[in-house]
Amino acid sequence: MHVLLVYVHPEPTSFTAALTNTARDALREAGHTVEVSDLYGEGFNPVAGRHDFLDVAEPARFHYQTEQGHAHRTGIFASDIVREQQRFMRADLVVWLYPIWWGNVPAILKGWFDRVLAYGFAYTDGKRYDTGFFRDKKGILCLTSGGTRERFSADGVYGEMHQVLWSVQRLVIEYLGMEALEPFIAFAAPRVDEATRDNYLQAWKTRILDIAGSGKGCAGRV
Amino acid sequence: MHVLLVYVHPEPTSFTAALTNTARDALREAGHTVEVSDLYGEGFNPVAGRHDFLDVAEPARFHYQTEQGHAHRTGIFASDIVREQQRFMRADLVVWLYPIWWGNVPAILKGWFDRVLAYGFAYTDGKRYDTGFFRDKKGILCLTSGGTRERFSADGVYGEMHQVLWSVQRLVIEYLGMEALEPFIAFAAPRVDEATRDNYLQAWKTRILDIAGSGKGCAGRV
Repeated sequence: MHVLLVYVHPEPTSFTAALTNTARDALREAGHTVEVSDLYGEGFNPVAGRHDFLDVAEPARFHYQTEQGHAHRTGIFASDIVREQQRFMRADLVVWLYPIWWGNVPAILKGWFDRVLAYGFAYTDGKRYDTGFFRDKKGILCLTSGGTRERFSADGVYGEMHQVLWSVQRLVIEYLGMEALEPFIAFAAPRVDEATRDNYLQAWKTRILDIAGSGKGCAGRV
Repeated sequence: MHVLLVYVHPEPTSFTAALTNTARDALREAGHTVEVSDLYGEGFNPVAGRHDFLDVAEPARFHYQTEQGHAHRTGIFASDIVREQQRFMRADLVVWLYPIWWGNVPAILKGWFDRVLAYGFAYTDGKRYDTGFFRDKKGILCLTSGGTRERFSADGVYGEMHQVLWSVQRLVIEYLGMEALEPFIAFAAPRVDEATRDNYLQAWKTRILDIAGSGKGCAGRV
């Protein structure tokens, strides 16, 4: 299996980095191939705009989705978008690893969704969900939270994690046609002790190997 | 009432711009004061990082929330963050106007949440929700969607709008202690006809004047 890890954290010694390194090393050791998109390390620009395109079809009134479709048809996406689209295309499994900020993805990752998953390339009319382009890919979120598991529950202040992650699981991963796997979450990562963090890394290693191992190329959908 | 409009769109002739201009003009005409944060126009940088701070307290291991707390105590936020925090502080009512992209805020606005609503400034331990700092402020989302109203329903592919907007309404606006008003949504804005768009603008004008008018300083909470 070929795996893309989209790694999102400004600090290389963060727990998100440890989760990324754990997945990368375990997958390679098991014979899979791995690429890493290091959004912070590579200085990814998350702002959608005219710079996304080598040329703009309708400069008088800039309509982002229209320009995305045009750029896809004519092959004029900016080079950073091309690079990320190629990484995405190559992957059987895509893992997004990030800290939950404001119940959501960090801005730099939101911009990766906005810019890379362009109209024409990632979806088009009638090509979404069950008819989406990427039904042969799986996707999983690997997250750290500041809040405890209790806060992310039906009785907790943030509500259930399913609800918090809805806009990503349902409106990004499933929208693309991908199989959205159950997220892996290291709750309260900055607050727990070293032993608990070690357990998180072990559990994550087991989980990601299980997903990749059962994938068999990418026909793991039942 | 003093109102902050956080306006998020790359195109000045967009419908989001029309909604912003409608609110600005109507509120001013009614005697309220208005400021606009034009995130695209002002080139707001949404990437949280070391550049958020004039100095970093613990450079060997960059921990964002820790640095935010330190910057708040010592007054060393970067100038764009200071400007946005001051705009936010002055407002009785904050309106975020944006197109829904991937069921979520555009990256440039997500970065405004990440960077401006900093630990220490916007919340701290024990100062969230009912004990939040900004219980005297109201907040409302004014949105455009590509999808129809039907798609954002219990039977629709995206699920109910309440669910889609949860991470912003519950984990940002209410988190801060603000009163989160019912969002205004111009469904399928690029697909409907001119008359429907005019109706949207009229309905939005009525709505925003009603909110501001009933605010009376900012003690509108029942």
